[in-house]
Amino acid sequence: MDFGVPPAVRESIVRVAEREDFGYPYWPGEDPVVEAFEERMAGRHGWRPSPGRTRVFTDLIQILQVMIEHATAPGDGVAIHVPSYPPFLAAVARSGRRIVPLPMLWDETGWGFSAEGLTDRLRAQGCRMVVLVNPHNPTGRVLTRAELSAVAAAAEELDLVVLADEIHADLVYSPHRHVPFASLGADAAARTITATSATKAFNIAGLRCAVAHVGPEHVLESLAAAPLDYFGTPSVLSRVATVAAWREGGAWLDDLLRTLDDNRRTLADWAAASPWDLRHHTPQATYLGWLDFAGTPLGDRSPAAHLERHAGVKLSEGAEFSQHTDVATASFARVNFATSPANLREILSRVSAGLRAAPAA
Amino acid sequence: MDFGVPPAVRESIVRVAEREDFGYPYWPGEDPVVEAFEERMAGRHGWRPSPGRTRVFTDLIQILQVMIEHATAPGDGVAIHVPSYPPFLAAVARSGRRIVPLPMLWDETGWGFSAEGLTDRLRAQGCRMVVLVNPHNPTGRVLTRAELSAVAAAAEELDLVVLADEIHADLVYSPHRHVPFASLGADAAARTITATSATKAFNIAGLRCAVAHVGPEHVLESLAAAPLDYFGTPSVLSRVATVAAWREGGAWLDDLLRTLDDNRRTLADWAAASPWDLRHHTPQATYLGWLDFAGTPLGDRSPAAHLERHAGVKLSEGAEFSQHTDVATASFARVNFATSPANLREILSRVSAGLRAAPAA
Repeated sequence: MDFGVPPAVRESIVRVAEREDFGYPYWPGEDPVVEAFEERMAGRHGWRPSPGRTRVFTDLIQILQVMIEHATAPGDGVAIHVPSYPPFLAAVARSGRRIVPLPMLWDETGWGFSAEGLTDRLRAQGCRMVVLVNPHNPTGRVLTRAELSAVAAAAEELDLVVLADEIHADLVYSPHRHVPFASLGADAAARTITATSATKAFNIAGLRCAVAHVGPEHVLESLAAAPLDYFGTPSVLSRVATVAAWREGGAWLDDLLRTLDDNRRTLADWAAASPWDLRHHTPQATYLGWLDFAGTPLGDRSPAAHLERHAGVKLSEGAEFSQHTDVATASFARVNFATSPANLREILSRVSAGLRAAPAA
Repeated sequence: MDFGVPPAVRESIVRVAEREDFGYPYWPGEDPVVEAFEERMAGRHGWRPSPGRTRVFTDLIQILQVMIEHATAPGDGVAIHVPSYPPFLAAVARSGRRIVPLPMLWDETGWGFSAEGLTDRLRAQGCRMVVLVNPHNPTGRVLTRAELSAVAAAAEELDLVVLADEIHADLVYSPHRHVPFASLGADAAARTITATSATKAFNIAGLRCAVAHVGPEHVLESLAAAPLDYFGTPSVLSRVATVAAWREGGAWLDDLLRTLDDNRRTLADWAAASPWDLRHHTPQATYLGWLDFAGTPLGDRSPAAHLERHAGVKLSEGAEFSQHTDVATASFARVNFATSPANLREILSRVSAGLRAAPAA
C-alpha cells in the first residue's frame, strides 16, 4: 500500500521511542490488543467476542499454520475457496492436509460459489476444516449472510472447524457489509476461529501483530497445552501501533476507503472500456482486483510475468492462486490498487500498452 | 534497566516511523538480524557461526521451549544450573521433561559448580540436554574455558544437546571473558544451540527479537519440518533496532558497563560492610546481584517479600530460582542494579534499614 499509516500509529511508535521505554511491558488487566480487538468487533462489526478466548500471534499465516496443526490431523481435508492467497494454499499443502478446493465461480453478476451439495462434497472429501477468507482475496467478494449460512450449515452437519480469516473486514465498500462468521449463531460461534489483524487496513504488515478468537473448546485446550511462549509474541511497538490503529485510525481509514473506492471504479471502467474481453468484477472489498486475461492476446500464458517483462508493471500471477489444486486460474492476474489514482492510471495504461503489443497466441 | 537505549536504536525506530514504512520488509540477501549476529559473534566473541544455521525468534524463553520440544522427548532429563531464572525452570517442568539440577556451589572465592562425576550424574538421571546459562543468571558467574570444557566432555560422552543461553555475553566485566560454548571445538559446535538477543544488554526486551544458532543437524531438520511460520516472526522495528544495537551501540554499551561496574562494586562494598553475614560475590557479568540473607534476621523467610513490604524495595525472591528442584535458595534474593548509582545507594540503604528493623527469627 502506498498510503503511509494513520497519524496515531506513527505517533504511538515515536512516543515509545522518545520515552526509550522498550522494557518488558506492564499492563494492568488484559492485553490491550485483545481489549481493542473486542471493542472493535462489537462496535464496528456487531459481534461480541467471548472473553478469554482471544490469543495474540504475530501474523495471519502463522495463525493458519498453528490452527491447522491444532484442529486437524495429517490427511484431513481442508476446504478453501480457490483462487486463494498463495501462501495459504502452500501452507495447507505443506502441512500434509489435503486441499479441498471450493471454486469461486464467475457469472455475469459477480463472483460466487456453489453451496449446492456442499455438505456431501465436504463429507466425501474427508473435510475437517474450512478456511473461509471473507472478504475474499483475490476476488474482493463480501459473502452474504445467506452464503455464510450455507457454509455454517455444512460445518454444523459435519462438525467442522471454521477458520474465518477476516483481515479485510475493514476494507468493505458500501453498501456491502461484513458479517463475522462467528456472529451467525451459537453453533457457528462455537466452531469458528476468527483471525484478524490491523496490518492490512492500516498498512502495518511489517509490524507483525494478529489475533485469533478461538471458539472451539478442543482447539483452545490444545493451544493451552502447548508451551506458553511457543508461538512467540509481538513487540510492544506492534501492540501499541495495533491499538492506535483500531482505536484512533477511523478518520484515516475513511479517507483511505474513499480513495480506494475511486480506484476500484477506475479499474472497472478501464476493464469495461478495454478493446479486449477483459473479465473483471468490481471488488466489494479489499484493494485487490482479479483480472481474467483469457480474452486478451495473453490468454493463459503467464499474464503477470509477461506484463512485468514487457510493460513494467508488477501484478501477481494468477496461476499461483490455485497451486496444489486443479482449479484453472492461469489466465488471471491480481492487481493491487492501493496506490494514488495517478499511479493506478499509469499502471492500467501500461497494461493496455502491454496487451496491445502482445503477440497473438 | 533504567538507562534508556542507544541513540542509534531510538533513531532507527524513529526513522522507520517517519518514513511510515511498515509494509512487509524487502531485504536483498540474508536477514539483516542474522548478518549482524554473525558479524558480532565473530568480531566481539571470536566465534564464527556456521552460515545457514541461525533462525530468528521473538525471545529467549520461546527459544528454550521450542528447543526442548525439538531436541528432547517427554520424560528426558534436562540439566540446568540452579539457581536459575525462574521462567526457565517453569518451562522445563511444564514441558514434561525432568529438571536435573546442577547446583551452583558457594565457596569463599566465588560461585562455581562441581564437574566431578558430571558424566555419571547426567547419565544416571537420563539427561538428554544441558541448558547452560552463561554468563549465569542470577550469580553473575562467567564460566571459564575449563569449566565449559568439562560440560562439553560430558555432553560429548553422552551425546547431549547443549542449549547455550548467552544473552548476557555483552555484559561481562574485565578481566573476565565470555567464551561461546560453540567455540570450544568441532564437537561442541555440532551439539550446541546458541541463543542470544540484543534485548538484555541494550534494554529492548519489549521489542522481542532473538536468534538461535542451531548446531545439531537433527534439531535443524526437526525445525525445518515444522510449518514455516509456526513460531512467528519479529516485527520490522524489532529487527532494525536489533541491528542498530549490535552494529552501532558500542559506545553506549561501554558507558553502560562503566556505570554497572561501579554499581557492582557499590553492592559488594555494601554487603561486605554490612553488620550481618550477608553473603555475596561480586558478579563477573550481568546487572544482577545474588544475595544470601541466611546470616541476617530474615534468614530464609522470604527476604524479598519482607523487604518489599517493609522496606519499599523490590528484589526477586530467591526461592523461585530453585522451583521444581530440591536445591535450597529460600534465603536468597536477586537485586537488579541496572539503575543510577544514587538509586542503587537508596535501594541498599532501604535494605539495610529493613534488615535492622526485621524481627529476629
